[in-house]
Amino acid sequence: MIPVAIVGANGYSGEELCAILARHPSVRVVAVTSRQHAGKKAGDVLPRLAGHGEFSELVFSEPGVPALLASGAEFFFLALPHGLASGFAAPLFEAGRRVVDLSADFRLRDAATYREFYGGSHGAEHLLPQAVYGLPELHREEIRKAGLVASAGCYPTSILLPLVPLLRAGLIVADDISVSSASGVSGAGRKAETTLLYGECNESLRAYGLPKHRHLSEIEQELSLAARRPVVISFVPHLAPMTRGIHTTIFTRLEKSVAAESVLPALVSAYAQEPFVRVSQNLPDTKNVSGTNFCDISARYDERTGRLILLSAEDNLVKGAAGQAVQNFNLMAGLEETTGLL
Amino acid sequence: MIPVAIVGANGYSGEELCAILARHPSVRVVAVTSRQHAGKKAGDVLPRLAGHGEFSELVFSEPGVPALLASGAEFFFLALPHGLASGFAAPLFEAGRRVVDLSADFRLRDAATYREFYGGSHGAEHLLPQAVYGLPELHREEIRKAGLVASAGCYPTSILLPLVPLLRAGLIVADDISVSSASGVSGAGRKAETTLLYGECNESLRAYGLPKHRHLSEIEQELSLAARRPVVISFVPHLAPMTRGIHTTIFTRLEKSVAAESVLPALVSAYAQEPFVRVSQNLPDTKNVSGTNFCDISARYDERTGRLILLSAEDNLVKGAAGQAVQNFNLMAGLEETTGLL
Amino acid sequence: MIPVAIVGANGYSGEELCAILARHPSVRVVAVTSRQHAGKKAGDVLPRLAGHGEFSELVFSEPGVPALLASGAEFFFLALPHGLASGFAAPLFEAGRRVVDLSADFRLRDAATYREFYGGSHGAEHLLPQAVYGLPELHREEIRKAGLVASAGCYPTSILLPLVPLLRAGLIVADDISVSSASGVSGAGRKAETTLLYGECNESLRAYGLPKHRHLSEIEQELSLAARRPVVISFVPHLAPMTRGIHTTIFTRLEKSVAAESVLPALVSAYAQEPFVRVSQNLPDTKNVSGTNFCDISARYDERTGRLILLSAEDNLVKGAAGQAVQNFNLMAGLEETTGLL
Amino acid sequence: MIPVAIVGANGYSGEELCAILARHPSVRVVAVTSRQHAGKKAGDVLPRLAGHGEFSELVFSEPGVPALLASGAEFFFLALPHGLASGFAAPLFEAGRRVVDLSADFRLRDAATYREFYGGSHGAEHLLPQAVYGLPELHREEIRKAGLVASAGCYPTSILLPLVPLLRAGLIVADDISVSSASGVSGAGRKAETTLLYGECNESLRAYGLPKHRHLSEIEQELSLAARRPVVISFVPHLAPMTRGIHTTIFTRLEKSVAAESVLPALVSAYAQEPFVRVSQNLPDTKNVSGTNFCDISARYDERTGRLILLSAEDNLVKGAAGQAVQNFNLMAGLEETTGLL
Repeated sequence: MIPVAIVGANGYSGEELCAILARHPSVRVVAVTSRQHAGKKAGDVLPRLAGHGEFSELVFSEPGVPALLASGAEFFFLALPHGLASGFAAPLFEAGRRVVDLSADFRLRDAATYREFYGGSHGAEHLLPQAVYGLPELHREEIRKAGLVASAGCYPTSILLPLVPLLRAGLIVADDISVSSASGVSGAGRKAETTLLYGECNESLRAYGLPKHRHLSEIEQELSLAARRPVVISFVPHLAPMTRGIHTTIFTRLEKSVAAESVLPALVSAYAQEPFVRVSQNLPDTKNVSGTNFCDISARYDERTGRLILLSAEDNLVKGAAGQAVQNFNLMAGLEETTGLL
Repeated sequence: MIPVAIVGANGYSGEELCAILARHPSVRVVAVTSRQHAGKKAGDVLPRLAGHGEFSELVFSEPGVPALLASGAEFFFLALPHGLASGFAAPLFEAGRRVVDLSADFRLRDAATYREFYGGSHGAEHLLPQAVYGLPELHREEIRKAGLVASAGCYPTSILLPLVPLLRAGLIVADDISVSSASGVSGAGRKAETTLLYGECNESLRAYGLPKHRHLSEIEQELSLAARRPVVISFVPHLAPMTRGIHTTIFTRLEKSVAAESVLPALVSAYAQEPFVRVSQNLPDTKNVSGTNFCDISARYDERTGRLILLSAEDNLVKGAAGQAVQNFNLMAGLEETTGLL
Repeated sequence: MIPVAIVGANGYSGEELCAILARHPSVRVVAVTSRQHAGKKAGDVLPRLAGHGEFSELVFSEPGVPALLASGAEFFFLALPHGLASGFAAPLFEAGRRVVDLSADFRLRDAATYREFYGGSHGAEHLLPQAVYGLPELHREEIRKAGLVASAGCYPTSILLPLVPLLRAGLIVADDISVSSASGVSGAGRKAETTLLYGECNESLRAYGLPKHRHLSEIEQELSLAARRPVVISFVPHLAPMTRGIHTTIFTRLEKSVAAESVLPALVSAYAQEPFVRVSQNLPDTKNVSGTNFCDISARYDERTGRLILLSAEDNLVKGAAGQAVQNFNLMAGLEETTGLL
Repeated sequence: MIPVAIVGANGYSGEELCAILARHPSVRVVAVTSRQHAGKKAGDVLPRLAGHGEFSELVFSEPGVPALLASGAEFFFLALPHGLASGFAAPLFEAGRRVVDLSADFRLRDAATYREFYGGSHGAEHLLPQAVYGLPELHREEIRKAGLVASAGCYPTSILLPLVPLLRAGLIVADDISVSSASGVSGAGRKAETTLLYGECNESLRAYGLPKHRHLSEIEQELSLAARRPVVISFVPHLAPMTRGIHTTIFTRLEKSVAAESVLPALVSAYAQEPFVRVSQNLPDTKNVSGTNFCDISARYDERTGRLILLSAEDNLVKGAAGQAVQNFNLMAGLEETTGLL
């Protein structure tokens, strides 16, 4: 049993992490932190996780590096807001512990891009070169060996998984990519903000954060790597009236002489060995991935306009956050990649 | 008081029509039909409309042309499935009555396009030249005089209103238009189909009907008119977990030498006198138009990619169906255009 | 046109009041206040009300008695939290203006009961005797003449309307009444609280505030009046995953020798002349009253246990708040009671 | 690995069974049947279960007793409509196989009660004495040995678990019990009925099936057993706008001389050893049990009226159906009761 700690356990991603790790057969959660709930039992703070034996009896503690180091945990999951995470990641990593960070703090290779998209300076720039972008389907081997994994974001995962194999294979035009995504409201976090109230989100569909959403920075970083040249895309995220799920629709074009029929087979083949990517002729539906670590992908060719349409669906809290973090952890810890996730 | 009849009054659009017309100050509903509910009182079939005086006591009748002609109605609203509507529209129109058809039967000027997109032959091709496309913001003067108005569809309204003024003014590139729309489930009608069950639609977001949705036929017809050359677009409709509302996000490009800052003012100016189009800097939200006949529009320029993003929101059952039909009727009847709609 | 002011116009009830009054044919809104939004146009603060002519251009002001008195308004609608409302109601009323208060501040005849249920002392106890409980179906004639009407609460309306006629007629056992109600989330107000987030309310049904919800005070006051003796009931409110609507289910017993078949006719007869109460054999459904000022009522006799089950449905923001306030206002102003509400 | 078959695998309960059993560590699903989907792969019929290895590749077959017997399954889960299930249960049971029936067919000890509540005669009356009512918390030892277990219904589970310990202990008045429950829409099954459409259930809360819902038969059977005398209750089920979950609120009275403070401890003590019942001071919330096999229970004493209020929440598809069936199976098969369920 590997001892792990969850730092920031009462946001939506943190709670989902707890739900997965409390049942993970090779893990013992030894510490959970929350500034707000320090001193309370996990089963009281997160009532859906009451009755899960040892985990439910665990007492939330104040987040603090010395106490975390003393907890005996070998792996640390950070489910903190961006900007805050680096303050924990750096000392834990430098003390030789292994860190899976769910925030954006270490997802970018370039500190200037971080400043451009997130504002303010980065708390631990010097660690960026050592951090690995935590999307196992793209960087599995580096993740296995990494000490600091920046688990990929929710929108990025849903956009990168359909696009990267096609860019790598040179099948699509890298400078003609437009993306429309819709996310469930849990994606915005458990924040006491009026705009996230039930009465504001129910029967509401609205775009937000355009044209320069923060996630573009990591999306374009990884697309550029795949295309081996700079890629810039348009991205419009929307808030949809559901708790979980991200649906992504991508408009792009085939490179000249690429046959439309070759796209879906290329995706099938790229993901044939992947346990969590399901490529299919059927159009993805968020309800089919809800509560799972799967990303469903499909494609349609629009012969009237010559455009290729790619579609994906995932659970923003699982494959888009906590599930992905555990998938990364499984790789780092030398476990079967699917442990606790199927 | 103008006597009107509603044919097909128990679908979602029909019910919304009843709701609007039951309160319309210049209208008396003299007949409502429904094959399924003939013989029952309107207030029993549509319980939310019980208690609305005379209307609630009206008895549903079997739909039949002779009885409809005998009802004394001068205007007929047809809220029937496509293919069925023309069987009523033709004899009523030819008997000198004025018809507002909410179906797709008379929206296309070209019968071949109808066959291509809807399959089967058209029941009343000879009337196509006399029908007017019922989007008042585009064809107000023709609608006033028309005997047969084909009220514009829900997706088309949300797509045409942002695009047409920009195409007319030559501001955007007509062959680079991709559209992602999401509709509430009422858009699929009150049909006993498993895929429309609450359990299948809640917490579900999914694309459907791509790449060649039927509504493309009328969308492209009107875009081509605006651009004065053939326009073909990509269109991906989605089903979102809400009862009402359509949100549309459009990716396009500015023509060379067009300034990004000129787009929103162009839209503001195009719709300055329109009572039901609200152009604003704020991003549209379906909940702000729910239950209203408004279409909200905004625009953002993505300078990183050079793309223009247009956004709109409407209530699919009001501006996308029943409200639009009444707006058309108000024009045809020489009433104030907003009567019963504000 | 009667000049009116809306104090506290950006909560859910306040917004609904604005929506109704902006269209009310005999009213001109001359002032809207909101501490938070002072200085902004109504159409910007409440985007669903943009485009409604004069109203949308109205500028929100700071709430303050002198400015309100100077506004020229003859009637004041107070949509403020309880405790705050009395601070406005008292000086406005004492200056000879007429007040419709949507808060609980003046609903109780007895200041001690107010203190028991709401805590703290009442800001204007001396006015309690002059305030009228604003449920028109119970107190219509007093409301017409009143200077200060305490518009009835949402749960109370849904509970009193089915019970009062039966208690008045001595048909049911007053000391055997248990009530289970469920409300949409808008009933909790537009407050930035974590428990009201979409992610906390969606797919959630939960009881709260039992066993001594504040609304019991006014419910029991009015039930006791109807029964002509003290009535105490059990009441369990629930939060249901919907924006609007209250559904109430009441368990009670028939007095000896009362025939089960007499109950529904007694209700039908009690409400035969009421424009906003629909008694029917059909079970009420919140969606049928959503956006309307109706309260739907039905009854079933359970012969296996001898219990009578009463059911009702209303829109908590309309008949439960803003619609009721306007119904009260119509009576006070000598207008047709249904003006602006049908 | 125990070979099992799922008969009727594409309703909501059947799908949930598949989801649980596909991951159950001691089970191999050897047959899944569906009249409608025979010939298709499980991963295609139930796309959320694609990618689950062997299970996803299983091909649906026509339901038929000979083929089921030939499948090698030792346990059969029947997720069929009532009336149909007995036609499978009887021959399978008589051939020596063990059966977990999720329908109502074998829940009643008395065939006359079956006829009264379900209409028509029972297909296999002679087996009623051998069937065990499948609520482990009440009948664990009999379930272990049973060949035919009638897994308890969703509403009954949520009502029996709070009441039975109190009736057994003589703490409450058995003839003063009124129950108000609300269920998510999946409780009505995956049936193509207009009343279950998204547009009819969203923003809708309504009672149905009163005053004599079929589930009363099994509820009263078990309450009477617990009270050792006939118990008749009032029960009002409601449909709430959510996919999953049942919330139950019960009004009853304490027996004379029973202290209000003794109720919660009595429940805590009754369920101290139960892995799936969580008794707490906190009010139950369906979202905390969604996707789990837990039933959460709490109690409040209303000293103003002397009534006791009991509350519970469960997932209708898990503890109310598929999870409970697997819990029963685990007992029958001699496995750890929680296997595959935590």
